[in-house]
Amino acid sequence: MSPPSSQAFCGVFPIAPTPFTESGELDLEGQRRVLDCMIDSQVDGICILANYSEQFALSDSERDALVELCLSHVAGRVPIIVTCSHFSTRIAAERARKARAAGAAMLMLMPPYHGATLRADEPAMLEHFARVAEAGGIPIVVQDAPLSGVPLSVAFLVRLGREVPLVRYFKIEMPATAAKLRALIETGGEAIAGPFDGEESITLMADLDAGATGTMPSALLPDLIRPVVLDHLAGRRPDAARAYARILPLINYENRQCGLRATKAVMAAGGVIRSEAVRHPLAPLHPATRTGLLELAAELEPLALRWGR
Amino acid sequence: MSPPSSQAFCGVFPIAPTPFTESGELDLEGQRRVLDCMIDSQVDGICILANYSEQFALSDSERDALVELCLSHVAGRVPIIVTCSHFSTRIAAERARKARAAGAAMLMLMPPYHGATLRADEPAMLEHFARVAEAGGIPIVVQDAPLSGVPLSVAFLVRLGREVPLVRYFKIEMPATAAKLRALIETGGEAIAGPFDGEESITLMADLDAGATGTMPSALLPDLIRPVVLDHLAGRRPDAARAYARILPLINYENRQCGLRATKAVMAAGGVIRSEAVRHPLAPLHPATRTGLLELAAELEPLALRWGR
Amino acid sequence: MSPPSSQAFCGVFPIAPTPFTESGELDLEGQRRVLDCMIDSQVDGICILANYSEQFALSDSERDALVELCLSHVAGRVPIIVTCSHFSTRIAAERARKARAAGAAMLMLMPPYHGATLRADEPAMLEHFARVAEAGGIPIVVQDAPLSGVPLSVAFLVRLGREVPLVRYFKIEMPATAAKLRALIETGGEAIAGPFDGEESITLMADLDAGATGTMPSALLPDLIRPVVLDHLAGRRPDAARAYARILPLINYENRQCGLRATKAVMAAGGVIRSEAVRHPLAPLHPATRTGLLELAAELEPLALRWGR
Amino acid sequence: MSPPSSQAFCGVFPIAPTPFTESGELDLEGQRRVLDCMIDSQVDGICILANYSEQFALSDSERDALVELCLSHVAGRVPIIVTCSHFSTRIAAERARKARAAGAAMLMLMPPYHGATLRADEPAMLEHFARVAEAGGIPIVVQDAPLSGVPLSVAFLVRLGREVPLVRYFKIEMPATAAKLRALIETGGEAIAGPFDGEESITLMADLDAGATGTMPSALLPDLIRPVVLDHLAGRRPDAARAYARILPLINYENRQCGLRATKAVMAAGGVIRSEAVRHPLAPLHPATRTGLLELAAELEPLALRWGR
Repeated sequence: MSPPSSQAFCGVFPIAPTPFTESGELDLEGQRRVLDCMIDSQVDGICILANYSEQFALSDSERDALVELCLSHVAGRVPIIVTCSHFSTRIAAERARKARAAGAAMLMLMPPYHGATLRADEPAMLEHFARVAEAGGIPIVVQDAPLSGVPLSVAFLVRLGREVPLVRYFKIEMPATAAKLRALIETGGEAIAGPFDGEESITLMADLDAGATGTMPSALLPDLIRPVVLDHLAGRRPDAARAYARILPLINYENRQCGLRATKAVMAAGGVIRSEAVRHPLAPLHPATRTGLLELAAELEPLALRWGR
Repeated sequence: MSPPSSQAFCGVFPIAPTPFTESGELDLEGQRRVLDCMIDSQVDGICILANYSEQFALSDSERDALVELCLSHVAGRVPIIVTCSHFSTRIAAERARKARAAGAAMLMLMPPYHGATLRADEPAMLEHFARVAEAGGIPIVVQDAPLSGVPLSVAFLVRLGREVPLVRYFKIEMPATAAKLRALIETGGEAIAGPFDGEESITLMADLDAGATGTMPSALLPDLIRPVVLDHLAGRRPDAARAYARILPLINYENRQCGLRATKAVMAAGGVIRSEAVRHPLAPLHPATRTGLLELAAELEPLALRWGR
Repeated sequence: MSPPSSQAFCGVFPIAPTPFTESGELDLEGQRRVLDCMIDSQVDGICILANYSEQFALSDSERDALVELCLSHVAGRVPIIVTCSHFSTRIAAERARKARAAGAAMLMLMPPYHGATLRADEPAMLEHFARVAEAGGIPIVVQDAPLSGVPLSVAFLVRLGREVPLVRYFKIEMPATAAKLRALIETGGEAIAGPFDGEESITLMADLDAGATGTMPSALLPDLIRPVVLDHLAGRRPDAARAYARILPLINYENRQCGLRATKAVMAAGGVIRSEAVRHPLAPLHPATRTGLLELAAELEPLALRWGR
Repeated sequence: MSPPSSQAFCGVFPIAPTPFTESGELDLEGQRRVLDCMIDSQVDGICILANYSEQFALSDSERDALVELCLSHVAGRVPIIVTCSHFSTRIAAERARKARAAGAAMLMLMPPYHGATLRADEPAMLEHFARVAEAGGIPIVVQDAPLSGVPLSVAFLVRLGREVPLVRYFKIEMPATAAKLRALIETGGEAIAGPFDGEESITLMADLDAGATGTMPSALLPDLIRPVVLDHLAGRRPDAARAYARILPLINYENRQCGLRATKAVMAAGGVIRSEAVRHPLAPLHPATRTGLLELAAELEPLALRWGR
């Protein structure tokens, strides 16, 4: 679904989980299998080192190792989006530089935040994005998510897209996403090359109705999300709605009960990775929650549940 | 579904919206119609003055008027839960006293909070609940929701249930609700007469699986939520799952795109109330969002969409 | 120090505490004495129903009673600022109307907030202020404080002052207040009739250096804060600095260790009010903290510690 | 003032700033000079990599380099506290291991936090501290500060001290610090080897009165804070109070108007470091704010303002 570089990316760009061994080391072989499974699911691109990749629990050297491994292993089969978010502009820019050098197609970036209280004002946020864009030299998708604790108004997002032309994609994952996407598209015009959503695609139908051209779900069921996007963009909305209603119970369960642990649990059950371990202080899934998740997944049989069996 | 007073309440206890006229006055006639429509939807009880009732936009005298009107109009047809939350223990207790005098069956109460920074520690929260319980003299449902900004641990909730025996119901509407409900039930035992959920029932199936015995959704489609609960409690889980999957697209749309405005929009379309107005600074629904909502509702035809036509 | 109505207010405008009896009732006689003591301290005006007045623990009818009592008792001896903040624009506007009718000289208003998550975007905040201004018809002081959880940029504050001309005063009580006041004055020009600070005057010298023309401290020691402002505005900065350094240990202790309880403790010790009770869930002062406070106060002998003896 | 290892640390343990060159590189020579200046100020120990060291703007390799440099340069002249805070338990533990290997005397640790929403519950926090303690094998000072967004009750802190015996020091920097320190000391008994405060010592006198035995200010004026602590611990409270009142205007200005930029500005003016640069998106001091700071500092002449001239 993704067009040549002169055109905008669109479609399904899931977040790759970062698999760990039971003892908590990076599982590099598992990481390769995750990527292969995602590519076999016909994703339009892959995003690495996002929050659903547990980036907040990785050291810098692990991060570097993952960028190298993922880019070299995927080797151009699909475009890779590398998340570069850091409070420090200098560090985010350095990450952008490395990502581009390794072959990334795009960067994902949150506004600066640290803890409950450290934030930047709008001029400083603009400068943050501008410097990272200059360092990276490739398109950027802004991540507008509650984790940052930073309210990003539509007016500011549009200004960002206009003043930092590489900021072309906007992943909106706030309450009332569809209305925000509508406002963004109406106000931003050509500055908005890709209005996207996220959050496991829990808002996908409404967002496609609002004009979204891409979604960044987890890697749990991208093969089943893809037809929704394809049908909708091709004008077959009733088909899209039907396909979406079918997968919604699983997405809802993932979104509300599991978070990032869902993809790992399904991929472990599906033989993609050997362990669903997450890093402490994240808690493992309650066994009953895992059972509920796998029951819902079994009804739909996403590729991740079958790939490695 | 609700048993005599010696037994615990269970079932569907939706939040009544507070209708306003276009000019922003309380629509008292509309309020009566809302209640009648809800009773005709066979709800097990009705909760008033909750956040989905826009309690944060009501004056004290409007609140008093609504308590009187709702209790006298319902007149015992179903039990009424009156929300009494206020930062001040004294004011919450006074609200509890009035609610009971008017005939309330139960109180709903959040922990004390005001703005971004004013909170109470655990001993003070315990005292808050104890004083309100003493003033009200009827059962209390604790509301454990993100709006308060107060993390309530399972250990604290159980302690609350044990030390303040009237605190018997627990409406959990946090991420990973099902796991929290499981922990609450396992730890709390008999102190937990009613493990409930909320949030428009967006987590209902998982919560019923976890042992929830009640749900507090909006008043948009309680007639369609009720069979899910009935089937599940009767051991017909596959029927419950099927019924839930059918209504999930509407609930998801309500939960993510609309919030409390959804019930008002559907009830206005269904002739229950004359205006879907909310009070400023809440924004009205984007017209396209309303269209999407009503399309999804039309497929399911909940009573609220037909009642007044 | 306050000029005729054609000119801007400047000087010391402390917050009046709301005294309660030991059993938690409003102490109306105590309230009158508080006002008299403040007037005897030669304040330039008095602000009522602020957060330091425990407005978050008052019912609407108590609020109405206090507006009537305070305005009639002061009877024009000094101008009165009435706080009208409420999440609901309608309720805030109604409060503004009543305040003006009772004789208020000015309104204080925070942006809309409720709990941890309910906020309004900038257009809605602008509308909120505009409607309250229209209802009140008297000048407004915007309160820019952490309690709201709303970041107000200098750009927005200036826009507010320009688009809602009655918004003329700006009480800045955020970290780095002085730099924000400087930016506000430089950017806002004539739209900023009164750049003020708050927070018990803990930032006063720096703010006066930055161009502040008024301060809104507690009512603990306004008679000792007044010379600092007078000296500074009259060009006697070394005298101001000396006077400020002398009272800083007490202000610092109040600000960090006591909050609103400090004024009540000192006024109770000084015979102004009979009880220093605050409303639950606020906790009373630790006895050792009170001792430390009264020791520091005794060294300075503010009028509030002597007035009623 | 610090006793042999069988006894508890007490006294003044300031945070070392991390100097950068104008172009944003680590200034390693400047870092050595910072440490020498602090030691010449007769500090009882030095804390590195804290938030006032801009740890949130450092890469892992910079952090490693700083640990090596600081420990080897100080070479046992005073004990060094190394901050190890990270959301990931594994990474915090690895930092602890490295710090101990390099010769640290103590670790400083916040509870896990990331952004506005990622936190851990009490059992997970306990486990976090336990694993870091096991990895480090040296005493830990818990940092209880608003940046984490985690409320730590006195009950939890005491439990932490009892269940993880290496957690022996408690740096409390929340509102009403003195009352919290009192409660901690009363409840915790021997589990509390060191009740400390922080925040530039803005609460020092009250905290010493409450039983604090150490303070962790900035490195701006530790030579002037030290007599306050010495006098107070030696029973000369009036001398301590007088000395504290003298330095309070500068501390207050630092705390409210400057934050971590104050020490850098003073050390740059005093020839300790060549640049006061902070890393973007932190903003440089407003020139007028710097002027005000240096004026107040000039009156007191702390060593940092004279050391390199």
